[in-house]
Amino acid sequence: MTLPIPLNRQMSASLQEQIYQFIRDRIHDHSYVSGMKLPSSRDLAASLGVSRNTVVLAYEWLASEGYLESRAGAGAFVSKVVSDALALAPTRPTGMTSRSVRIQATAMPQPMLRTSVDDAPAFEFWYGRPDPRLFPTHVWRKLAQESLSVANAGIGAYGDQGGDRRLRQAIAGHLALTRGISALADQIIITAGAQEAINLVARLFVDDGVSVAIEQPGYQAAADVFASFGATLHAAPVDEEGLDLAGFRGTRPRLIYVTPSHQFPTGSVMSLARRRALLSYAAANEAIIVEDDYDGEIIFDRPPLAALSALDSNGLVFYLGSFSKSIGPGLRLGYLVVPRGHEDMAIRAKSQMSYGQSWLDQQVLAAFLEQGHFQRHLRRTRKLYRARRDAVTMALHAAFGPRVAIRGGDAGLHLLCVLPEGGPCAAEVSYAARGAGVGLYALEASGVFGALDDPAVRRTLLVGFAALAPEEIRTALERVRAKLAAGKQAKAASMDP
Amino acid sequence: MTLPIPLNRQMSASLQEQIYQFIRDRIHDHSYVSGMKLPSSRDLAASLGVSRNTVVLAYEWLASEGYLESRAGAGAFVSKVVSDALALAPTRPTGMTSRSVRIQATAMPQPMLRTSVDDAPAFEFWYGRPDPRLFPTHVWRKLAQESLSVANAGIGAYGDQGGDRRLRQAIAGHLALTRGISALADQIIITAGAQEAINLVARLFVDDGVSVAIEQPGYQAAADVFASFGATLHAAPVDEEGLDLAGFRGTRPRLIYVTPSHQFPTGSVMSLARRRALLSYAAANEAIIVEDDYDGEIIFDRPPLAALSALDSNGLVFYLGSFSKSIGPGLRLGYLVVPRGHEDMAIRAKSQMSYGQSWLDQQVLAAFLEQGHFQRHLRRTRKLYRARRDAVTMALHAAFGPRVAIRGGDAGLHLLCVLPEGGPCAAEVSYAARGAGVGLYALEASGVFGALDDPAVRRTLLVGFAALAPEEIRTALERVRAKLAAGKQAKAASMDP
Repeated sequence: MTLPIPLNRQMSASLQEQIYQFIRDRIHDHSYVSGMKLPSSRDLAASLGVSRNTVVLAYEWLASEGYLESRAGAGAFVSKVVSDALALAPTRPTGMTSRSVRIQATAMPQPMLRTSVDDAPAFEFWYGRPDPRLFPTHVWRKLAQESLSVANAGIGAYGDQGGDRRLRQAIAGHLALTRGISALADQIIITAGAQEAINLVARLFVDDGVSVAIEQPGYQAAADVFASFGATLHAAPVDEEGLDLAGFRGTRPRLIYVTPSHQFPTGSVMSLARRRALLSYAAANEAIIVEDDYDGEIIFDRPPLAALSALDSNGLVFYLGSFSKSIGPGLRLGYLVVPRGHEDMAIRAKSQMSYGQSWLDQQVLAAFLEQGHFQRHLRRTRKLYRARRDAVTMALHAAFGPRVAIRGGDAGLHLLCVLPEGGPCAAEVSYAARGAGVGLYALEASGVFGALDDPAVRRTLLVGFAALAPEEIRTALERVRAKLAAGKQAKAASMDP
Repeated sequence: MTLPIPLNRQMSASLQEQIYQFIRDRIHDHSYVSGMKLPSSRDLAASLGVSRNTVVLAYEWLASEGYLESRAGAGAFVSKVVSDALALAPTRPTGMTSRSVRIQATAMPQPMLRTSVDDAPAFEFWYGRPDPRLFPTHVWRKLAQESLSVANAGIGAYGDQGGDRRLRQAIAGHLALTRGISALADQIIITAGAQEAINLVARLFVDDGVSVAIEQPGYQAAADVFASFGATLHAAPVDEEGLDLAGFRGTRPRLIYVTPSHQFPTGSVMSLARRRALLSYAAANEAIIVEDDYDGEIIFDRPPLAALSALDSNGLVFYLGSFSKSIGPGLRLGYLVVPRGHEDMAIRAKSQMSYGQSWLDQQVLAAFLEQGHFQRHLRRTRKLYRARRDAVTMALHAAFGPRVAIRGGDAGLHLLCVLPEGGPCAAEVSYAARGAGVGLYALEASGVFGALDDPAVRRTLLVGFAALAPEEIRTALERVRAKLAAGKQAKAASMDP
């Protein structure tokens, strides 16, 4: 058995990369299904007229991303995990699959499914993760103690389904101060993080065939939620000024999902002109805007721009925020700010999803905000994260050469690193990094929505730098550099007669 | 203006009850919409040929349930809150309503929407509420302190999206011991309470037109969730042995939602024969069973029956539990146990909803289970709740006479009280109770799914007794009795010439 892989030696993509891509695409489109045995590397190499090493490398990349698994002595097989995730063959009882299940077919990136610390690389550059070591444990413990020292702790009772009132008040104050948003506590619905807030908006407004615009490239997890409610998705192109309205030509989205503060994944900041244009468009077309203030608390080199919600005079912006990056993801608290008049409907929809959030976490967070700890924590972590941004920028240049381009580092916990042409592609770097105990990921493997047909994409890494100290960043990237150099040497050696 | 209310003096329902019912039905079927002015009580009484007092009382009942509102000097109007909840007129932007929003049209019972303690009656018999004063604050504080004393508290990081592993392990142990369920930790997905667990099952299996069987009478909030995912709902009748399979004639549900431990709201316990028959039915018809173990931890007078999940040898039962009643609703933790083979799919679906639950609450709960506190807490509260069940039974007899029938008190935190024929109906008692500072609710006003055409329904109260101590229960029901007696006297006096 062999595989009909059309190799092109003129392409800038290396041969192993073309093999890798071909097989991966076949698994994605279900041509190759779970358990299918692949030809041996020797056979495939012979049939394609390439060195065996080329095929071995391609297989190893695929295995490192979970597409293939090797069984000792038996060869390589399409892995059950990934292909099940893609196909989600109806399990029993037969015939019962839902729209939602079809959506979950989107393979979840490995680091998100990792359940044990044992699997984790020593140095992890997965995006969207704050440094757990910066969590203000001491203050938190004190506040938790105080919350549990009042008689009849509220854990014993149902709370307000829109969220604890003190917390909503504190968030309203914070948003007024830092984002220019004037919202009453009633307009703020506490959720289990941003993901639930996206679900809440979807439940309110999305039904079969409702057209939803998503930035491209954009946040796959948001696209999945809207699609699971029946949305027809439209990709809206993004450039260095953020979402480009010109991309709406021919479509008329009823809901527009944007990440203006630090666009995911490009990191661009939406310009004020674009913000105003988007608001006018929404007003003229009776669309609503979902403003996911992704990384909005972590702006480095300039004052933050006004939030869309702050500029909105027509009640069209649903603003969502989260404390996952600014404090810690284990808190599982975020919020949705709804325009006036939508409060009742939003609380009803939230109640259908779950009856509110943890009493204790809400109490502690409210006190944390009220007593000024949050502002202090933000000032402190912003400074540290800026230093890490600088460290990773320098270390990426040191590892991959001066022609590396860094994008989207003005804000947030991640940036893009575009590798130089002619060098290893992002998948190859990611594979080598893994071998060196470093989690460093190709943009394509990072849960990104939208066709990525820019040829630079396959050379782009999505680098989350916040969870590592500058010294760790330097060590990790030096290891990756050394591993790549060693691989190159080994390859050169194996090509000797 | 008048209303064409066909009164029947031969009916056992009083005249004010017939007026109440007529207007309520018109609001439900949208004949009377928000803001509509009702005729003055004087005009309506004259046109119907009844005493003005009769109309005033009917209007007052309707107002007490939120259907009407009075504006000083201007008369009574159909209230905005309830009729909006029913109609959910699309708010701006126009045209954007979803299936889910239509579902939320189900009016949410007032006590669930109450956001301030100020609104609350002095004595509250709303169902499903444990006594907050029994919450083990002291132990909780100690365990929270311990959880936050380890270095790098997990709040700073993303946890396992299926839930904390220690907690899942502890729940698996608890379920094996107390419910006979043998599940691995991997099969247990931690959720934000039972409501989210129902959403998770719905997301996995329900799509447009999937037929779902719901007990009738049953749990409206579950029915709403399934309907919001497009389910076609079938009402399956319930008797004193629980859900009756004979009710499936002609329909072939793909998913069957049941509350076998303490059926909501009838309180019946599903017999072992019915449990086995239901499992056979599901196996023969490729249906899945969602076993909501409502009140399953609180069984009074006999050992609990084996859970459906424990009897299931075909992997068809999705079991859901919650710590809201057994520990406290402010914890917002529950879980779904999925049959083997569904673990991956369930975690993916959960991730689409939210990325897991509060780290701190999960840590504390895990320790609470591991160290035996939970078993001790259950033993202690079960004993107290049994005493309250006995107290409420006696006090209901004392208030409403020996012909009161009590049903469904073998387990759980609520029971049904069927008032004697010829006396005041449940809505009337509820209204009088409210006037006496007591929250006591008609079954019909309690978020119950399914047509309630049993004539006894209008005489049935749904009485949650767990949050009040025996002495409080006696005081509250004595107040209701006195208020009703005073009302009767006043009425008799007003009928004198």
